[in-house]
Amino acid sequence: MKIGIIGTGLIGGSLGISLKNCGFATQVFGFDATEGYAEKAKELGLIDEAMPLDRLILQSELIIIAIPVDATVRIIPGILNNVTNQIVIDVGSTKEAIHSIAKSHKNGKRFVATHPIWGTEYSGPTAAVAGGMKGRITVICNTEDSDNDAVEVVEKMYTTLGMRIVHQDAQSHDIHAAYVSHISHLTSFALALAVLDKEKEEEQIFRLAGAGFESTVRLAKSNPDTWTPIIKENRSNVLDVLNDQIFYLRQMKKLIEMEQYDTLHKLMEQANEIRRIIK
Amino acid sequence: MKIGIIGTGLIGGSLGISLKNCGFATQVFGFDATEGYAEKAKELGLIDEAMPLDRLILQSELIIIAIPVDATVRIIPGILNNVTNQIVIDVGSTKEAIHSIAKSHKNGKRFVATHPIWGTEYSGPTAAVAGGMKGRITVICNTEDSDNDAVEVVEKMYTTLGMRIVHQDAQSHDIHAAYVSHISHLTSFALALAVLDKEKEEEQIFRLAGAGFESTVRLAKSNPDTWTPIIKENRSNVLDVLNDQIFYLRQMKKLIEMEQYDTLHKLMEQANEIRRIIK
Repeated sequence: MKIGIIGTGLIGGSLGISLKNCGFATQVFGFDATEGYAEKAKELGLIDEAMPLDRLILQSELIIIAIPVDATVRIIPGILNNVTNQIVIDVGSTKEAIHSIAKSHKNGKRFVATHPIWGTEYSGPTAAVAGGMKGRITVICNTEDSDNDAVEVVEKMYTTLGMRIVHQDAQSHDIHAAYVSHISHLTSFALALAVLDKEKEEEQIFRLAGAGFESTVRLAKSNPDTWTPIIKENRSNVLDVLNDQIFYLRQMKKLIEMEQYDTLHKLMEQANEIRRIIK
Repeated sequence: MKIGIIGTGLIGGSLGISLKNCGFATQVFGFDATEGYAEKAKELGLIDEAMPLDRLILQSELIIIAIPVDATVRIIPGILNNVTNQIVIDVGSTKEAIHSIAKSHKNGKRFVATHPIWGTEYSGPTAAVAGGMKGRITVICNTEDSDNDAVEVVEKMYTTLGMRIVHQDAQSHDIHAAYVSHISHLTSFALALAVLDKEKEEEQIFRLAGAGFESTVRLAKSNPDTWTPIIKENRSNVLDVLNDQIFYLRQMKKLIEMEQYDTLHKLMEQANEIRRIIK
């Protein structure tokens, strides 16, 4: 199958090379609005050919949009205007807005909203990883609003990559993603900011950083061009979980201020219940 | 050298087996107030012999206290009362209180305050890891308050384990540890609590949890018996960094509420500076 990838960075590039490697793609075309990215992706073997967007849409059977979520929302009507029988998917971290825009488009049934749950804190074509998504989950949203043949192809693509498929409506997806992904990034950014501030007074502060710090702060290396749009698109769910997170931090603060360590201990025990989820 | 370990859990047990493996210890004695822990540690080969505390103090040349930091503070005077020429160290995550108590003791010069920067979210003898500390940093505090021969032995022990030594006063240690370790645990506990709460409404919420969530939440599995005392002992520094963390989360919340995404983007860019520290 001829696949066109719009956005040949971390996610698009990883999909390109992985789909070539597993034989699902016979040819991978790439377009990227960032100068030099598509050429770099070709050089790295992530795509076979860089080409302008209009040609990519014409020549591809399956078009994958892998760009920041606000840009996806902006370009999707123009892309759908130009499809006949092609399938179009996006792979972004928020799904409600894109699903709703595609649904109202006359060619919207050629679109499938997906979210492969994989990524790293790096970005651009050089960050692409072949086979990185294997064993991970892909969410596919509101398949009832897409043509059956389109859903079939997309599901086959993800299972060929070794991914497990979860069906979910776009609205639930965005709530869940706020709680198990977006807030992790915001707390990590906040933690980095707090410690970087303190470094101005305490120069050597990072000497004592161990594995625990590293694991909670590594997401703060993530690309603001990716994450600002995600937060924007998922604004109300993100505000909910930010409130919850701040509530618990303030509760801990209050308990420490009042030296109610037994209650703090109980809260930590309650948090330990996460062992059920994270082995 | 004959080494006695008080507390044969994650840290004490790991030190026992590692010190045996590298040849620094000729014999390792162990005591643990938790029933069955010392026997389990012997069974796992972490120590050579389990014995009562008073005999352990008499028979050891180097005594390592590896128990929760508040318990260390409680038992240190009694242990120092009974040492003649033995060396005593602790390996806890807070240093100011223990250093100050030991300093005021008549045998306080036999004590060295240390903190090997290593650990996992697991606890007890079964969590011990041989050689896990290799390549990590150990902080040794206020060596001017300890006998030279004691400091020499302790430094040799840690370098034999393959650790790098950083000298620091106890007060700076506690500030730094609050910022690069203790707050990571509190934010992780808070994140776990927020998502576990949400799970009551959204049963399947953890299906979408990826590597990013896992890395920011794994510390929430940590033992409350270890972490409540650390927070208690480092109360004022922890309150400072909690305030900073809450400040940044509230700032993000405000920016999202007011839809000031350019400023949010700038904050994230600022946080990206952590790339300088975490490669």
